[in-house]
Amino acid sequence: MTTAEHRLDLQRRRRLGMVEAVWGENKSPEQIAAIAVGLQEAGEVLLATRISAEKAEAVIALLGTPGVQHHPEARCLTSPELPAAIPERGRVGIVAGGTSDLAVAREAQLSLACHGIASELVLDVGVAGLHRLLDQLEGLRQADVLIACAGMEGALPTVLAGLLPQPVIGVPVSVGYGVSAGGLAALNGMLASCAPGLTVVNVDNGYGAAMASLRILSGRSLGAPLAPGALGSSSSTASSQS
Amino acid sequence: MTTAEHRLDLQRRRRLGMVEAVWGENKSPEQIAAIAVGLQEAGEVLLATRISAEKAEAVIALLGTPGVQHHPEARCLTSPELPAAIPERGRVGIVAGGTSDLAVAREAQLSLACHGIASELVLDVGVAGLHRLLDQLEGLRQADVLIACAGMEGALPTVLAGLLPQPVIGVPVSVGYGVSAGGLAALNGMLASCAPGLTVVNVDNGYGAAMASLRILSGRSLGAPLAPGALGSSSSTASSQS
Amino acid sequence: MTTAEHRLDLQRRRRLGMVEAVWGENKSPEQIAAIAVGLQEAGEVLLATRISAEKAEAVIALLGTPGVQHHPEARCLTSPELPAAIPERGRVGIVAGGTSDLAVAREAQLSLACHGIASELVLDVGVAGLHRLLDQLEGLRQADVLIACAGMEGALPTVLAGLLPQPVIGVPVSVGYGVSAGGLAALNGMLASCAPGLTVVNVDNGYGAAMASLRILSGRSLGAPLAPGALGSSSSTASSQS
Amino acid sequence: MTTAEHRLDLQRRRRLGMVEAVWGENKSPEQIAAIAVGLQEAGEVLLATRISAEKAEAVIALLGTPGVQHHPEARCLTSPELPAAIPERGRVGIVAGGTSDLAVAREAQLSLACHGIASELVLDVGVAGLHRLLDQLEGLRQADVLIACAGMEGALPTVLAGLLPQPVIGVPVSVGYGVSAGGLAALNGMLASCAPGLTVVNVDNGYGAAMASLRILSGRSLGAPLAPGALGSSSSTASSQS
Amino acid sequence: MTTAEHRLDLQRRRRLGMVEAVWGENKSPEQIAAIAVGLQEAGEVLLATRISAEKAEAVIALLGTPGVQHHPEARCLTSPELPAAIPERGRVGIVAGGTSDLAVAREAQLSLACHGIASELVLDVGVAGLHRLLDQLEGLRQADVLIACAGMEGALPTVLAGLLPQPVIGVPVSVGYGVSAGGLAALNGMLASCAPGLTVVNVDNGYGAAMASLRILSGRSLGAPLAPGALGSSSSTASSQS
Amino acid sequence: MTTAEHRLDLQRRRRLGMVEAVWGENKSPEQIAAIAVGLQEAGEVLLATRISAEKAEAVIALLGTPGVQHHPEARCLTSPELPAAIPERGRVGIVAGGTSDLAVAREAQLSLACHGIASELVLDVGVAGLHRLLDQLEGLRQADVLIACAGMEGALPTVLAGLLPQPVIGVPVSVGYGVSAGGLAALNGMLASCAPGLTVVNVDNGYGAAMASLRILSGRSLGAPLAPGALGSSSSTASSQS
Amino acid sequence: MTTAEHRLDLQRRRRLGMVEAVWGENKSPEQIAAIAVGLQEAGEVLLATRISAEKAEAVIALLGTPGVQHHPEARCLTSPELPAAIPERGRVGIVAGGTSDLAVAREAQLSLACHGIASELVLDVGVAGLHRLLDQLEGLRQADVLIACAGMEGALPTVLAGLLPQPVIGVPVSVGYGVSAGGLAALNGMLASCAPGLTVVNVDNGYGAAMASLRILSGRSLGAPLAPGALGSSSSTASSQS
Amino acid sequence: MTTAEHRLDLQRRRRLGMVEAVWGENKSPEQIAAIAVGLQEAGEVLLATRISAEKAEAVIALLGTPGVQHHPEARCLTSPELPAAIPERGRVGIVAGGTSDLAVAREAQLSLACHGIASELVLDVGVAGLHRLLDQLEGLRQADVLIACAGMEGALPTVLAGLLPQPVIGVPVSVGYGVSAGGLAALNGMLASCAPGLTVVNVDNGYGAAMASLRILSGRSLGAPLAPGALGSSSSTASSQS
Repeated sequence: MTTAEHRLDLQRRRRLGMVEAVWGENKSPEQIAAIAVGLQEAGEVLLATRISAEKAEAVIALLGTPGVQHHPEARCLTSPELPAAIPERGRVGIVAGGTSDLAVAREAQLSLACHGIASELVLDVGVAGLHRLLDQLEGLRQADVLIACAGMEGALPTVLAGLLPQPVIGVPVSVGYGVSAGGLAALNGMLASCAPGLTVVNVDNGYGAAMASLRILSGRSLGAPLAPGALGSSSSTASSQS
Repeated sequence: MTTAEHRLDLQRRRRLGMVEAVWGENKSPEQIAAIAVGLQEAGEVLLATRISAEKAEAVIALLGTPGVQHHPEARCLTSPELPAAIPERGRVGIVAGGTSDLAVAREAQLSLACHGIASELVLDVGVAGLHRLLDQLEGLRQADVLIACAGMEGALPTVLAGLLPQPVIGVPVSVGYGVSAGGLAALNGMLASCAPGLTVVNVDNGYGAAMASLRILSGRSLGAPLAPGALGSSSSTASSQS
Repeated sequence: MTTAEHRLDLQRRRRLGMVEAVWGENKSPEQIAAIAVGLQEAGEVLLATRISAEKAEAVIALLGTPGVQHHPEARCLTSPELPAAIPERGRVGIVAGGTSDLAVAREAQLSLACHGIASELVLDVGVAGLHRLLDQLEGLRQADVLIACAGMEGALPTVLAGLLPQPVIGVPVSVGYGVSAGGLAALNGMLASCAPGLTVVNVDNGYGAAMASLRILSGRSLGAPLAPGALGSSSSTASSQS
Repeated sequence: MTTAEHRLDLQRRRRLGMVEAVWGENKSPEQIAAIAVGLQEAGEVLLATRISAEKAEAVIALLGTPGVQHHPEARCLTSPELPAAIPERGRVGIVAGGTSDLAVAREAQLSLACHGIASELVLDVGVAGLHRLLDQLEGLRQADVLIACAGMEGALPTVLAGLLPQPVIGVPVSVGYGVSAGGLAALNGMLASCAPGLTVVNVDNGYGAAMASLRILSGRSLGAPLAPGALGSSSSTASSQS
Repeated sequence: MTTAEHRLDLQRRRRLGMVEAVWGENKSPEQIAAIAVGLQEAGEVLLATRISAEKAEAVIALLGTPGVQHHPEARCLTSPELPAAIPERGRVGIVAGGTSDLAVAREAQLSLACHGIASELVLDVGVAGLHRLLDQLEGLRQADVLIACAGMEGALPTVLAGLLPQPVIGVPVSVGYGVSAGGLAALNGMLASCAPGLTVVNVDNGYGAAMASLRILSGRSLGAPLAPGALGSSSSTASSQS
Repeated sequence: MTTAEHRLDLQRRRRLGMVEAVWGENKSPEQIAAIAVGLQEAGEVLLATRISAEKAEAVIALLGTPGVQHHPEARCLTSPELPAAIPERGRVGIVAGGTSDLAVAREAQLSLACHGIASELVLDVGVAGLHRLLDQLEGLRQADVLIACAGMEGALPTVLAGLLPQPVIGVPVSVGYGVSAGGLAALNGMLASCAPGLTVVNVDNGYGAAMASLRILSGRSLGAPLAPGALGSSSSTASSQS
Repeated sequence: MTTAEHRLDLQRRRRLGMVEAVWGENKSPEQIAAIAVGLQEAGEVLLATRISAEKAEAVIALLGTPGVQHHPEARCLTSPELPAAIPERGRVGIVAGGTSDLAVAREAQLSLACHGIASELVLDVGVAGLHRLLDQLEGLRQADVLIACAGMEGALPTVLAGLLPQPVIGVPVSVGYGVSAGGLAALNGMLASCAPGLTVVNVDNGYGAAMASLRILSGRSLGAPLAPGALGSSSSTASSQS
Repeated sequence: MTTAEHRLDLQRRRRLGMVEAVWGENKSPEQIAAIAVGLQEAGEVLLATRISAEKAEAVIALLGTPGVQHHPEARCLTSPELPAAIPERGRVGIVAGGTSDLAVAREAQLSLACHGIASELVLDVGVAGLHRLLDQLEGLRQADVLIACAGMEGALPTVLAGLLPQPVIGVPVSVGYGVSAGGLAALNGMLASCAPGLTVVNVDNGYGAAMASLRILSGRSLGAPLAPGALGSSSSTASSQS
């Protein structure tokens, strides 16, 4: 039986200007650590999502090197240090219905931060208490892109996209019970939305919403996708390999 | 093979204070006409729903008697003449997202009218243009019960129930395409709603929402369910058989 | 990364006359405790649902203050003390098919009790043993609103709504296996019901059924939604602690 | 390309004591007529289900021989003449919620009649008007097997099986809209039933319920499956080939 | 809050001739023990299904009385001692595709044994090795009723019902993965079966299949439902309360 | 019964910079014509989607005024004349798997054209013949936004988003059979995509994909949403009402 | 708006050795005729599937050239004449449950014939009459590949793959009603099959099963994929363009 | 109650040339050990799938005999020693999207190895980084059969089958979240594939894909199914029983 080797998509950043996230949910700590070593040796950024506190601890212990950071609210691991935000790359506004949507919103924020993009999170603006959202409207109007995370019936992105003209990306959240269990009611509600031009990503896919924002912002601010040297603190290594 | 006879639930009005609607979609004109004759002979009100223009014409031709009325927007047949509205029985406010929801909203209005209950229909107040709903809020505040019909993502009842304290009954409408085809996205959105105390009926069930309103109003205004003599114009016949 | 703050919907009681329940299932003890402190500081009632015994203990330990009460059968936390029932606000009859539906029925009862509304629970009246339900009919006839909780095929609300004229709210319960796992067979059975005017809430949503009852009773008894001061018997306490 | 020939299961009656029904919905008149000729030549009974009036006329014209009978309420074709009912084979009681279930109930009756089994149909006994069912209980108690046809929420077989000790076979009917469209809510309701020992067949499968009844009655009355000579009027032909 | 009391359906045996099984999966040991005490006091048989080894131990410890028996393969508790089988009540043949279906088949066997009915279990006769089933055919031909348990594609009852003329009850088993996870592929396969007269119960419902067999056998052997005194070893107590 | 009036969202263009499309599928020619008159009187653009050739003819006959144009490939009606494309507003590349996706792609093109945005359509680039897509890559690299329409398994947007860094909006198309009937397999394939930053709209929602592109381009080119005067040829009327 | 041109995958035959079928269901006669002309000009074989009699007639009229052949049982159009079967390419055995599966089986046969592969069709071998299948076993044992078409519960391929060692390809057929409507019960039954090594294609995909057979046979008989010159009668044109 | 005995399908190898895998997921260590003893006594190969590390340890401890081997990446147990690969039996190429698909790919490899068939695994060739797949194309072109494992949107087999002419068997993997949870999006994507002749097995069914490959290779290389003596190292025992 031939041994399979990992084939990291190290050209992705050059091709798309995006860090390739490692989806951690179905991987063992050993598998994640092996991938992390590969990325570090290539001078690449590590962004591993869906990492529980226990798994994070195990991976960090296996790596034994400093510089891998666990973000408990976002359930992610990153390495090396996050770059400083570059204001001219644009700003993303993230809104969420409630505390239960926090992990998904934080995953989006962190994924943006890995690419030097600042974001602002506005929580507890569910549509059953509409005034809370209306109170935040002026602030949100300043963002270049809006990400709206919602579980239950998922109406928040619809209401938002009816009020503001920016790109709005809906992220259904797998919070709920009965017909909303697993986030499918929210997903279908966003897809069926009567608000024009709302787009949607998979349930809980905060990383995906961040990357969609990055695609929008890259074209907008620079006229070209992000150069690899702009990412991470180990830019010298990164540029030496390009 | 034994011949089956119809067994009309003529006690329903006495027991529940409600006209038994005849669901016309899967019945032939002959079957509907036979049921109509049975109801007329018993001095009962006829309310047949889901009747296309062609079917209505065929039923009326079969019956050959005046007094059966077709309501094209509501797709219903009624007989005898609708009673005048009794203001003290209460008022129902009906809101709907758009023209495509009209038939369902009209079925609810007509079902209420059969029981002497006035209603007001406010159309085109979808949540993607929130100001249109907010503009109608003061008027809706006067209603005793609210019925909200919506297809697509079905967020209208959620927003409404977050703004007003009355009973709100959501009616999903089978208007839409892709994930909203058949009204299931709207249905699930209403059931999953984050607005407290919203209740829901089956897709397109305008009659059901009207009957739920009637149950609420009957208790409220009279302390007892509607007496049979209060329905229809043929009250003398109705009371003679009770 | 901006820190998100909780934005409690403290106007809800004034707007809708309802306590905002905290849905505890997907929240950590720390998150629930933080929200509880916020509500206490605002002089508001705490009603947290879907709280296991372990989570209840953890929240109470975190708060460290007396007065938070755990209701194990209803799986809820409340604070401050429940107000005494106000008879003139009306009575709710709650029926349930069996022991497995108990938690949902108790959540409805407790949610009503938080608003000063008395209720009576009638258990083990499944439709496979019809006489048990028929035996209770006279008692149920006295209620202003009926809540019917049922898992499996969910036929109980249908049979009930065919027998009694009051508003009937069906609550599907996620008890069952095979096709009834998760409560969807019961939900669809209630929505598809041939009984006129039955309305439905999401699976296991005892709180929602209670709030729907409250909307009905508020209009009925007072002609206006509940004033905020009417909630809790310790209204002086409530304001003194805000 | 090799020509495919029909391979009629002519041993079925000997093996199982059952006529093999021809499911007509997806077959052309030409295909049905060809199968009918094959059965006639083998001295076998023809029972073709799901035959519209137009298709029936076309098949009869193609066959050009007398003796093929169309049963419009059951949407079936049969040939040769139906045998007289044999009382000692047992009696089947068939109940149905309403007029919309008639075609399915009639298909069951006709399938039984093809095997010399008498049945009685009781219509309009939906569970929303329970007294109509309770009024028929004594009559139904005399049947050896009960078939209960219901669309919508499909609660009728559950209530029936909770009241009577005989075998009860539930037949979901594809009548309804929204969540009950296609009969799946009724099907799931019957499968999830809290009544012990209720069994179910596919949606609209009146023929299947009849054959299940036949299996029960055959064992009961005779201790052995039906002999082929007992079926149809062309018994001499049938026995000559056995 | 009113305390709810259990309302055991003690008339069920008289009405239907069946022991009311206690579905143990969603009940706590305390709840099961309380019901067991109620049944014992009424002189009734206890049959509790879906009881894990741990839960069984806890219930037995709570009851503290001898005579409650745990059947690990069937995952059931019974009390008092099982009655001896009564040969003239008939015989049930139970077939199952493999070891993974064992628990469901054993639940059916035990449920029959509670009513004095003998059964024989034939395992490992899946349709992918057809000769294993064909080898058992002569033995199965002696049974009065056949129960066929199968997971995966669930074809076993179809093949069986095509070969033998007795009543065949299909029990889908929740064994499988991918499209067969949860037993729905097997359920739908049985409902869609091309074998005439196959009936089906809910996934994993061994008890239900046994009760359906009992309904068939009761009519067959006695011409009337089982008298209550025929059940259990405590017949004197049982008859004293009737 | 109160007459409902249409409440056109005439502020939408000012608020969002977008024409409000009239979804024509569930509306009668009379309803569409009435809405068209309302829009014309307000000096607004008409864009009605899902209009068959027959319905288009009926609407045009009802309106009786020149200037309403039917676009058969896009199944749309527009009025007044489409504005000339404004190159500096950006360019959209639209790719589609095959001829069956044409109507959806054309709806997107036309919706963009209504807002003065040029687009290029590249057809027949399904992933089963990968070279056809790779041959078009250089041309597509020049677009500011990419819309990818695909039925069947819907893999085209995934492959595209893995190759190019621009915003990619996937539009599932309701072309297919078996598991791909209705477009849900394509929809789920796009949502589940392993390509980072792909966003999705509802099945067949060419208009929605166009509006999402417009949101992206508006921010990019102008720093502000489209001013109403920039739309349509009747700009003087439009500005007079603003 | 740029005009889209068709981009036929003319390299497919060279790359894969397969004719590219034109899926006719969602295409207009005009679109099919345009594609046919393109293929004829390139010297390629036309195989258009899902063509009704009416559509076939319209396409043939539009083309106006002889040599396009309609195959009504297979619902296909082909051109030019089918090549003679090449025995050494192997033999495919096709089995089907009944007449309703005929169109799918014929589509598979015709698709094979387009590639010079002989096949034999065995009809009416459904598993409810097992002896009919067992009678054909010896003949089927001679085939190199087996294609098994079945609707309803779809057990035929499972039974077949348990009896014979060849590659077996299951084709679910969209024949059935209730739970088997659309062929999904058959599809899931085949995927969940307990027979080892059964593979499956989409519902009704006779063409796909044929192409899978071709992949198997090509490797087997020649050690290399089919050369383009081996297909169709216009081999000189085909080779001149390669 | 009759004791059920295991009925191993020991003729399967002779009939089909395949080892019967024991599906370990729903079996206890005791049950697996009992089956293993039965197979060893019959001189048969043991291949038990879905065995966790804990269960493997328990089975090995119960058996107490050497020679049972646990394969942790494939989650399988085998016994006796795997045979050496026989090159002339052919080669299988296995491709997989990522690390999360590893267990399924390894199960396929091991199942092939049990039959003396060599395979090569190529990992991390997901379609979002297409160049990684294109780089491996020449190597894959040498394989006789291709197995493609993919979770998420499952597009890998489609792209592969569009590039290479061999038989391609798609294996959906239950890796993913939201709409791809459980592998159904990947499954449907593969079934709906626009690539001709792709066949599919159930989600995670690595064993099934291997057996389908074996069916293909057996016909190809030998003209007859695998003789039983060719399997395992204990061929003398195996042949002594045949």
